[in-house]
Amino acid sequence: MGRWLGWIVAAALALASLPASGGTLREDVRAWRLKNEKAVVGELADLVAIPNVADKVEDIDRNAEAVSALLARRGLKTKILSAGPGTPASVFGELKTPGARRTVVFYAHMDGQPAPRAGWFSEPFTAVMREGLPREGAPDIDWRAHQGPMNPEWRLYGRSTSDDKGPIVALMAALDAVRASGRKPSVNIKVFIEGEEEAGSPHLAKILAENRELLKADAWILLDGPVHQTRAPQVLFGARGVSEVEMTVYGPLRPLHDGHYGNWAPNPGVMLAHLIARMRGEDGRILIPGFGDGVRPLTPAEERALAALPPVEEQLRRDLALGRTETDERLLNAISRPSINLRGVAAGGVGEAANNAVPTEARASIDFRLVPDQTPQKVRERFEAWLRAEGWHIVYEAPTPEVRAAHPKLIRLDWNLGYAAVRTDMDLPVSKAVIASVERGAGRPPLVVPMLGGSVPMHFFAELGAPVLLVPMVNHDNNQHAVNENLRLQNLWDGIEIYAALIADLRW
Amino acid sequence: MGRWLGWIVAAALALASLPASGGTLREDVRAWRLKNEKAVVGELADLVAIPNVADKVEDIDRNAEAVSALLARRGLKTKILSAGPGTPASVFGELKTPGARRTVVFYAHMDGQPAPRAGWFSEPFTAVMREGLPREGAPDIDWRAHQGPMNPEWRLYGRSTSDDKGPIVALMAALDAVRASGRKPSVNIKVFIEGEEEAGSPHLAKILAENRELLKADAWILLDGPVHQTRAPQVLFGARGVSEVEMTVYGPLRPLHDGHYGNWAPNPGVMLAHLIARMRGEDGRILIPGFGDGVRPLTPAEERALAALPPVEEQLRRDLALGRTETDERLLNAISRPSINLRGVAAGGVGEAANNAVPTEARASIDFRLVPDQTPQKVRERFEAWLRAEGWHIVYEAPTPEVRAAHPKLIRLDWNLGYAAVRTDMDLPVSKAVIASVERGAGRPPLVVPMLGGSVPMHFFAELGAPVLLVPMVNHDNNQHAVNENLRLQNLWDGIEIYAALIADLRW
Repeated sequence: MGRWLGWIVAAALALASLPASGGTLREDVRAWRLKNEKAVVGELADLVAIPNVADKVEDIDRNAEAVSALLARRGLKTKILSAGPGTPASVFGELKTPGARRTVVFYAHMDGQPAPRAGWFSEPFTAVMREGLPREGAPDIDWRAHQGPMNPEWRLYGRSTSDDKGPIVALMAALDAVRASGRKPSVNIKVFIEGEEEAGSPHLAKILAENRELLKADAWILLDGPVHQTRAPQVLFGARGVSEVEMTVYGPLRPLHDGHYGNWAPNPGVMLAHLIARMRGEDGRILIPGFGDGVRPLTPAEERALAALPPVEEQLRRDLALGRTETDERLLNAISRPSINLRGVAAGGVGEAANNAVPTEARASIDFRLVPDQTPQKVRERFEAWLRAEGWHIVYEAPTPEVRAAHPKLIRLDWNLGYAAVRTDMDLPVSKAVIASVERGAGRPPLVVPMLGGSVPMHFFAELGAPVLLVPMVNHDNNQHAVNENLRLQNLWDGIEIYAALIADLRW
Repeated sequence: MGRWLGWIVAAALALASLPASGGTLREDVRAWRLKNEKAVVGELADLVAIPNVADKVEDIDRNAEAVSALLARRGLKTKILSAGPGTPASVFGELKTPGARRTVVFYAHMDGQPAPRAGWFSEPFTAVMREGLPREGAPDIDWRAHQGPMNPEWRLYGRSTSDDKGPIVALMAALDAVRASGRKPSVNIKVFIEGEEEAGSPHLAKILAENRELLKADAWILLDGPVHQTRAPQVLFGARGVSEVEMTVYGPLRPLHDGHYGNWAPNPGVMLAHLIARMRGEDGRILIPGFGDGVRPLTPAEERALAALPPVEEQLRRDLALGRTETDERLLNAISRPSINLRGVAAGGVGEAANNAVPTEARASIDFRLVPDQTPQKVRERFEAWLRAEGWHIVYEAPTPEVRAAHPKLIRLDWNLGYAAVRTDMDLPVSKAVIASVERGAGRPPLVVPMLGGSVPMHFFAELGAPVLLVPMVNHDNNQHAVNENLRLQNLWDGIEIYAALIADLRW
């Protein structure tokens, strides 16, 4: 009750006291936002309503059309970029600022992770407002009928509310707010909205290479990933890379009664369990010999930046009901190393679907998180060499019965090679300017993080030659990539203020 | 073409030359069958059409009604047996033979394994005729419109065609055929058709205890399980027992982006993989110390019986496209040991459903196959003691967040304790009489198997004091317990002849 009262009073005071323009940039942006909350949320809800899994090219095309319209409404010249027919579109936009010396490209992505319905409390592609963390039976809030400022602890639920459509809509709102305040941008603005980031950006390199001139800039600022777990704003100077592989291990050609055949016919689930256990420890360590050779260590400055970050570990352990962590290191240190993540495993059936049968195959989906200077190709080579040393015969498509019969240990690999990691120098002028601008936009100094644990395709942009930084806005507890993804409204509001500062108040 | 022609000629000759009665019992039964194939298959198809997963009590009640009607049509006095309201029914039937000294109970079960639709080439509860092994796109055969004897290599597809409704219908046909031949049974006949065998027979002991007098007999003959892989008939003197346990291992309370948290938050899929790998070798050996202590070894006679069985291993390796087997032992020796079977494992998602997320839990379903003199209670005690020694905290229901936070290694167990194993003495007079009777019914000596690898609840019957034997009829390649379960027609025809011999030609 106290908290509710607090923000209602604060919002009322803000509404009453703030002019639409005439204050600081931050004050003006906030005043604009308080009057336009419904329009901003509405724009995001409309965008979420367009399904956006990158393997459906026609869905991404519909997203591209909608995003282009958002940019055009803010006066940007837009262009659809594509690597060719049948590949998902990306959207480019440009807004020139007379007299500006610097050009910044703002990057976000409009595609999202797959969203099978199971486990979601409502349809993934229908944005629904609820208060707080995901909770079965939490009532939907009719925000369209709501009067006055919205409760900032409300969250908008739906695939890509946070990852990564929320930041697109925040950037649009920031442009509107800057304009409404009578200011103009301090830099030339380019916008690049990718259509297949969650699919590992398979055509990004081609699109960037074919549009080098169009995308020429002095810096790239990526709007993706979450703010700090303490809800503090942050600027990140890098991100891990990622490679994914689907593994299939084979048992008998048809399911067999496990009582009649179970000690004799090989059980692919057991083979896969042994493989996983030999690959990765319960402490998170990669057990593949030589896998981390040639990894670039953190610099002393990066180590210091990590050490300066506020501790989050105890709070997270409580929030997540963790009985242990895989390592005693700080979280950020743990995710600055290369890693193997088991994303899923499936064989036979469990619970209601369990049968007394030896399954015909067992599957596991893993990702490798890469740090500088690992490359996806090298990761693949080392992983496959290790598998062969362990006695596995590798194939890349469904094996025939003859191939299955010929190899005692047979594994199918389906690679999504992904991209490498980046760490940008924190001492560059642009690095310092972005930190200062975010501080003005947020009203407090951002945390400075050498490298994000998650992966964003900074690598492709870094190869164009300009420095690449990451300025996130969404809440850390957004269920990104999982069921019940959501965006906390206060993070949306903060994001608008920070991005407005990057638009109108970034100078170096 | 040659094979087709062969059986058409053989069938035509048989039809033309055999009298409905007047030959040997076997000849008379065959003549009856050749004239009644459609009626027999129709009776089975009608029975398969009634869904029969034991957790739907009302479905089992409908099966019980249908089975009672089948028995009543053969003149048996029937009675529905039940352990109480809300538990699945079983069916009892009795047919007294004036002057007979011996009473035999024939056992089968009318319930089936769960049959989720995925993977079946047609609806599990709609019997469909096709030729040969399961094959995508194989045409349905309109057997109702077919003229003349059916191709014995046709198979009837559907849940429980083999396990275990086929044997019920074969027994009914055998009764009809014996009667049509003018003979009468050589023993008093009792029939007991269970309604929850695939659920581990949780109420069988109670039903048997409450109906001791009704079920009094000199022998139990169980009609379940497959014939030998060479398609030879067999008589089995035991079966392994079974206990099942569902295991759930816990990760974070909500799914976490594995890039941001994946080297720090514990991955339950990895924990489960390590647990499975420590529990069971890729060679099928149980790695739990002391788990097999007190297991009764095979007797020299049982060892000799196993050694006398024809080799099937090479053929099976080819048919199943196995690149290896878990052991170099003979199949029957391998499944005469205690075992752990991994029936299924599931965590997160694979393939299209894979997300870059640390899953909140991982599940595995395993069964233990028991040999004399293991007991389910002892298996459970040893398994749980081992888990505790490995550092696991065990719970038996969904843990609260507080419990999850309090235990570094937390596992939920859901037991289905099942039942113990049986091996009946092969030298008893009834044992020899059944072997001789099956030889007359089949026209060749049956294989003699000390113990079936699969589990049938012989243990409960053995406790009543009479010897228990198993005389199967269905094909080994029937996909029992799995998708596309089927019954090969030749096995149905052979089963009718063998069961007719047990009805009309069993004496000791």
